Amino acid sequence: MTTSTTTTPATPPQSAELEKLIQHKPGRFRVLTGDRPTGPLHLGHYFGTLHNRVRLQDLGVEGFLIIADYQVLTDRDVADRLVEYVEGLVLDYLAIGIDPDRTTIFTHSAIPALNQLLLPFLSLVSVAELNRNPTVKDEIAHSRQAAVSGLMFTYPAHQAADILFCKGNLVPVGQDQLPHIELTRSIARRFNDRYPTGGRPVFPVPDALLSAAPLLLGTDGTKMSKSRGNAIPLGASADETARLIRAARTDADRHITYDPIARPGVAGLVLLAALCQGRDPHAVAEEIGTAGAAALKRTVTEAVNEFLAPIRARRAEFARDPEQVRRVLRAGNERANAVADETLREVRTAMGGMY
Amino acid sequence: MTTSTTTTPATPPQSAELEKLIQHKPGRFRVLTGDRPTGPLHLGHYFGTLHNRVRLQDLGVEGFLIIADYQVLTDRDVADRLVEYVEGLVLDYLAIGIDPDRTTIFTHSAIPALNQLLLPFLSLVSVAELNRNPTVKDEIAHSRQAAVSGLMFTYPAHQAADILFCKGNLVPVGQDQLPHIELTRSIARRFNDRYPTGGRPVFPVPDALLSAAPLLLGTDGTKMSKSRGNAIPLGASADETARLIRAARTDADRHITYDPIARPGVAGLVLLAALCQGRDPHAVAEEIGTAGAAALKRTVTEAVNEFLAPIRARRAEFARDPEQVRRVLRAGNERANAVADETLREVRTAMGGMY
Repeated sequence: MTTSTTTTPATPPQSAELEKLIQHKPGRFRVLTGDRPTGPLHLGHYFGTLHNRVRLQDLGVEGFLIIADYQVLTDRDVADRLVEYVEGLVLDYLAIGIDPDRTTIFTHSAIPALNQLLLPFLSLVSVAELNRNPTVKDEIAHSRQAAVSGLMFTYPAHQAADILFCKGNLVPVGQDQLPHIELTRSIARRFNDRYPTGGRPVFPVPDALLSAAPLLLGTDGTKMSKSRGNAIPLGASADETARLIRAARTDADRHITYDPIARPGVAGLVLLAALCQGRDPHAVAEEIGTAGAAALKRTVTEAVNEFLAPIRARRAEFARDPEQVRRVLRAGNERANAVADETLREVRTAMGGMY
Repeated sequence: MTTSTTTTPATPPQSAELEKLIQHKPGRFRVLTGDRPTGPLHLGHYFGTLHNRVRLQDLGVEGFLIIADYQVLTDRDVADRLVEYVEGLVLDYLAIGIDPDRTTIFTHSAIPALNQLLLPFLSLVSVAELNRNPTVKDEIAHSRQAAVSGLMFTYPAHQAADILFCKGNLVPVGQDQLPHIELTRSIARRFNDRYPTGGRPVFPVPDALLSAAPLLLGTDGTKMSKSRGNAIPLGASADETARLIRAARTDADRHITYDPIARPGVAGLVLLAALCQGRDPHAVAEEIGTAGAAALKRTVTEAVNEFLAPIRARRAEFARDPEQVRRVLRAGNERANAVADETLREVRTAMGGMY
């Protein structure tokens, strides 16, 4: 059995030392993670990043969790449902075990001092650097807009502000986000060099914690993603979940195997069951044997529903008290504002601009 | 005599109607003006823009006067003397008759909610528009930096925030700044279209008040400018002023005339005396006749010193009480913050982002 390496994937070699340090001295770290409020979180998010946030929190790492509402401004469809999406995210967080006493949940748009950091940070990066950033290039290529907005163009500097306003020194990322973190590190270094305090530098140079999260496939055998309509939301009911899995794309071969390359549809379902049960996907496939796709789907439905049951129950409980969700957000915004105000004060003192 | 058209230059035709409205209903306007804190203000600033600010204030137009300290971040020489320059600007303002009860004097860096407006505004402009802006192109061409910073690139959006945070609807500008104001107008229109309130739109679409201020030449016959070392600061003593004018570049022709094209050095001095005395430059030149450059310089020195005497006296009085200068700035920042917080609240409500 290789359960542990499947459900808690091996840490990439670059991050192994860091991971040890986190386990040993969690109090030395402050982690910044976040999401854009574009709709309900799903199992792909959960196994990709959410479970890792809860893990770090429960290890004792202080967390800041940003709802990046200013990064969805240009998406009209989202803007119309912003409050619903933001409150939905908070519900999802609470449901999976994010504890607002240990993790500050806040919205980007409610923290003016965080946003002000954008200006000194923009003075520390060149237009050429912003142009070169591959994540922005990617965003631009994928954007449905005719023109690239100034907001999208300056996104790496906003992300630096999101991370550094709370002096975050740990950012869990996938390989593709490394260039973003590299620019944040450069901004922190440049600021510290340019505006020395005589004592401790204003900003930490944050470390990227690379995760080797498995790529969870959706019900159509491609990457699970809300926009592809192949995702199982954390808030889905047992019936909806069963329906979504029943409609999943499989193949005619009754012998169930775990072969992500040749049989992405079947392998996606197998992996989903394996992750939910904390088992090895090959073992899951072997157990079903030649019982065919229908049996596989029954197994997956059961595994997912069993896994989501406590999350759904907590979600439903919190959903009954919308005022509590708003209270969590208000308290988080208040705390984030206090932290941002203090950082901005240090920034302005270091820059010699306190009049 | 054409005194009035010389010292208060004819309003350009585009702004004549606007000027009439201002005279008639000054209470309908809120004017945003400002300076970068790069050193002491001089007579070129005074006759170029400062006297017009005092004029508008005294007509009854509410003023917001921004000290654009975030626009000098990339200038290392300035950054080291920022506090001195900022407090010097406040002294200059008070000395020329800016009344902090009617004009809010504040610093860009102290108003987080103003700076936050940059983010929604950046979402409303394209990178192509920022690239096209001729003022930015000009700034870039004149910058002493190797690379264009993100701060400089996004400058037109900051300026929109500076103007719109206080719902400024009047911006006195020179012809060369019109493209900036045009972008601010576009941002206001786009915001109002995109985020309708059901009632009055959040932002006014500000009008540019074109001024036909005379180009004041410095003591070397080129445009008066601190960086050219040819300027007479408002705070200069009578002796310094005399020394600066004595060193001015003239020519060997003892017959003094007002001919800005052929004799820029002499004409610059003649204009300086004329502006200080509220007279026509041709009349000033005629009066000196063939008495030569030395006589011209004596006339100019006397005119400038007489003109600056009350300004210097007030400046010296305020300078004796540095705490008062700081109080003015603190009160201005407090008021600007209250205005910015209220505008940001309206912005976030219109955008549907109040959680």
